[in-house]
Amino acid sequence: MSSAGLNQLVDKPSRWLSEAGPNADLVLSTRVRLARNLRDIPFTQRAAEEEMGIVVSRVVSACQSSPSLAGGDFLAMGELTELDRQFLAERHLISREMVSEVRPAGLFLAAGEGATVMVNEEDHLRLTTVVAGFEIDRAWEAVRRVEEELDSALEFAYSEELGYLTASVFVHLPSLVLTKRIRQVLRGISQVGLAVRGFYGEGSEILGNFFQISNQTTLGLSERETIENLEKVTRQVLEAEVRARRVLLKEAHLQIEDKVFRAYGTLSHARVISAHEVINLVSAVRFGVALGIGPEADLTTLNQLLVMTQPAHLQKLGKREMTEAERNVFRATLVRERLAEPHPTPGPAS
Amino acid sequence: MSSAGLNQLVDKPSRWLSEAGPNADLVLSTRVRLARNLRDIPFTQRAAEEEMGIVVSRVVSACQSSPSLAGGDFLAMGELTELDRQFLAERHLISREMVSEVRPAGLFLAAGEGATVMVNEEDHLRLTTVVAGFEIDRAWEAVRRVEEELDSALEFAYSEELGYLTASVFVHLPSLVLTKRIRQVLRGISQVGLAVRGFYGEGSEILGNFFQISNQTTLGLSERETIENLEKVTRQVLEAEVRARRVLLKEAHLQIEDKVFRAYGTLSHARVISAHEVINLVSAVRFGVALGIGPEADLTTLNQLLVMTQPAHLQKLGKREMTEAERNVFRATLVRERLAEPHPTPGPAS
Repeated sequence: MSSAGLNQLVDKPSRWLSEAGPNADLVLSTRVRLARNLRDIPFTQRAAEEEMGIVVSRVVSACQSSPSLAGGDFLAMGELTELDRQFLAERHLISREMVSEVRPAGLFLAAGEGATVMVNEEDHLRLTTVVAGFEIDRAWEAVRRVEEELDSALEFAYSEELGYLTASVFVHLPSLVLTKRIRQVLRGISQVGLAVRGFYGEGSEILGNFFQISNQTTLGLSERETIENLEKVTRQVLEAEVRARRVLLKEAHLQIEDKVFRAYGTLSHARVISAHEVINLVSAVRFGVALGIGPEADLTTLNQLLVMTQPAHLQKLGKREMTEAERNVFRATLVRERLAEPHPTPGPAS
Repeated sequence: MSSAGLNQLVDKPSRWLSEAGPNADLVLSTRVRLARNLRDIPFTQRAAEEEMGIVVSRVVSACQSSPSLAGGDFLAMGELTELDRQFLAERHLISREMVSEVRPAGLFLAAGEGATVMVNEEDHLRLTTVVAGFEIDRAWEAVRRVEEELDSALEFAYSEELGYLTASVFVHLPSLVLTKRIRQVLRGISQVGLAVRGFYGEGSEILGNFFQISNQTTLGLSERETIENLEKVTRQVLEAEVRARRVLLKEAHLQIEDKVFRAYGTLSHARVISAHEVINLVSAVRFGVALGIGPEADLTTLNQLLVMTQPAHLQKLGKREMTEAERNVFRATLVRERLAEPHPTPGPAS
């Protein structure tokens, strides 16, 4: 079953990638994660392989009887190829560390990829939900429902409940970057205990003006306070971006339009293109579409391109291993084809 | 009449710009010029204004009775605006010097712009013919016909017949530039007494891999020898370019295709663009079309864009004066519109 579940991910974009959520012009997705550990088994780092196997079988069994995860698949790391694991990491479904994990571990994946359970990462369970757009509450409610359902089947250790929540919002802030206000905004974010990361997560460089804002620590805060704090601060950042967009539209409309359309022209015509260049160009086009001055492209297609053009995704889509040079050609073809497709009806505006 | 003749040039591209001549993939146009002076009047530099006026009236009268120039117009410099003169200079119909000429001088323009007579530049008459593509003989025959017709009505001074012929071929050599063989080729050209200039003529920088190859001096050579020498050497240069194209197509097909299509994507999407950038991008697209790997554009449209996007041309087309910033926007719009037009049926292949 594992390979079928994974191939479904390849052929069909995740639900959160197929719809435009609230504030889609500013926010790509919202993600909430809860870490849990089983009460009677040592933490993953100190657990024996046998104990880790027990964790896997208990968690999988609990997941299968959870209504929220019903019909899902368990992908055991040991049964996946290196490429499959890279694919899951690119989709943010498993961590980079888990790509090279050799002990019993895996990913339980609900239909539609809305909720997932990483098994035997640093914690026994990491429950994650992702939704399109800026909707922390919805993601938070969803992950809590999964947690409650699993809680009835598993016995969680609650001694360290605080600090087990991570929420993050994946935002697009081109105007703050262009108006050079981004440094100040990022400094403000870290001063209130939140973290900002680049496109690919921890330690990654800033690409395409995409940022992940997340809570850095939940110590001293309840889970509700953590969620509310992230929500409030992110909203302030988004408001700053909206103000900067208005200024740019007023003062540099033509330059922005030119930049946006040139990016679209390159994206829709290149025959060889790197993943980084795609991110930067998609960022510019996405900006134009969000401003309402852009070319005829929709945010959902652009968001999907960010995910689909990563190396393992390309190779899964192409159903073969590819060198970097081959990927650069395949990527350019994929981008051209996707941009040429008729646009789906836009979702409800935010 | 003068303004009508000039406006016709604005609205309708010249015949040589509307057709694809022989070797259109390598050569944009061929130009032959003959200088003549009237026997009984001092050279322009030493002539009195009254004498220059006499030259104008005699030459115009002779032109009007010349079958080759029949139906043409005389554009008196004194009656033209600064913009109109710039326009004629951009079209290579008058020299840069003539733009600021305050004494009696002008341009006689045959219908279709195939033959022109510049009056009172350094010489009393400079007869010029331009043809599309690489066809020196045709241009040479045409200018000789005009010269013979005028010779029957005017008395030319023939004491210095040698040195009064200038022929030039406007070539596109992207492969020699890309393969870094261009320096060697240019050195070879100047060693056999020919000159190479950039896009805009004397002293201009090399833009878009376009070059003008011309005879530097005709001293010691008959007019026929001059023509034959230019033809022979240019043919060798074109053969070197064709060989380099074959090599590139074999060894760097994908990179060339990528470069060509990116250039097309930018040209067809930019909202603000400089004249220099248009030349460089048109060069890349023209290269792709010439190689048969290019986007759906035709050489004639691309050649026209090189001419039409120059500053005075834009202002004549837009029927108003424009700042540089306004021109950059108008230019981008013009380029997009022209590239989006349906392509004319291609002319006979060379």
